[in-house]
Amino acid sequence: MILVIHAHPYPSRSRACRTLVESIRNVAALEVRSLYELYPDFDIDIDAEQAALARAALVVWLHPLYWYTVPGLMKHWLDQVLVGGWAHGPGGEALKGKDCLWVTTTGGDEQAYSPQGRHGHRFADFTPVMEQTARYCGMNWLPPFVVNGAHVVSQETLLEAGDRLRRLLERRG
Amino acid sequence: MILVIHAHPYPSRSRACRTLVESIRNVAALEVRSLYELYPDFDIDIDAEQAALARAALVVWLHPLYWYTVPGLMKHWLDQVLVGGWAHGPGGEALKGKDCLWVTTTGGDEQAYSPQGRHGHRFADFTPVMEQTARYCGMNWLPPFVVNGAHVVSQETLLEAGDRLRRLLERRG
Repeated sequence: MILVIHAHPYPSRSRACRTLVESIRNVAALEVRSLYELYPDFDIDIDAEQAALARAALVVWLHPLYWYTVPGLMKHWLDQVLVGGWAHGPGGEALKGKDCLWVTTTGGDEQAYSPQGRHGHRFADFTPVMEQTARYCGMNWLPPFVVNGAHVVSQETLLEAGDRLRRLLERRG
Repeated sequence: MILVIHAHPYPSRSRACRTLVESIRNVAALEVRSLYELYPDFDIDIDAEQAALARAALVVWLHPLYWYTVPGLMKHWLDQVLVGGWAHGPGGEALKGKDCLWVTTTGGDEQAYSPQGRHGHRFADFTPVMEQTARYCGMNWLPPFVVNGAHVVSQETLLEAGDRLRRLLERRG
């Protein structure tokens, strides 16, 4: 079973993430949990989230990149749900061996993610935070799926990306 | 004026961050804003936060390291307060030229932050997220002030760290 944790603070303004989510929604045995719809007041149901994670073989984190990492509610989700004694530490093996795929959309093009670009770093320089979060919980970290230029690329390009993501999940599911 | 943005989700369990905050509280022209006290329901007063930032010459981000970056409410604060047209982008120069100091406490010792350690990376590999957030807003990034082993070091060591931080702020204030 594939669990997609989807976090977009402004669904009505979302174009890239929405296209990706719609592209994969019909993949067999796939559950999408949209955090900003489930928890508009940030009051996360930890038991429900942990139960969903426990069912999954592949966990997908899907969100726009906000300040080089996850949006606020998803960070709160990581803090609240991936706790010691459950996700890590003594007795914390609930996520061990699951696959983890980070899917994110960025505003900048690839050129912006370089030492000379306006983000001052390669995209890979921002990945250790999320990668090590997954690995610390014993998950297998898959190569991130990144869609750059989310505000500017054509709808056709987004649909192509959605198709690539769908096929990737169908192979792993 | 020095503005300290302090974020600890569980103040009663805080030892390292609390010692640091208490050590610097009496520095002249310093304001501490404790986000989890101000906004227990995550409903951030954006105008008040921007006004406080506008008054500051030095912005201090002080929090325990949660999943290699800021706790959820502080990430929400970054998303909500450092917005385009105010903190970056066209017309967004409110933070330009201010100094930014990242003060964080970690559970692991220095050995844990190495490719062979349990965090799999040097601490510096986790800094681009926060550093580039500050730089993208035109702030001057100061060398981070990190206290490792927050759960295990002696109170004396924490008081020494607090004293070092206090002197650092007094020099910059």
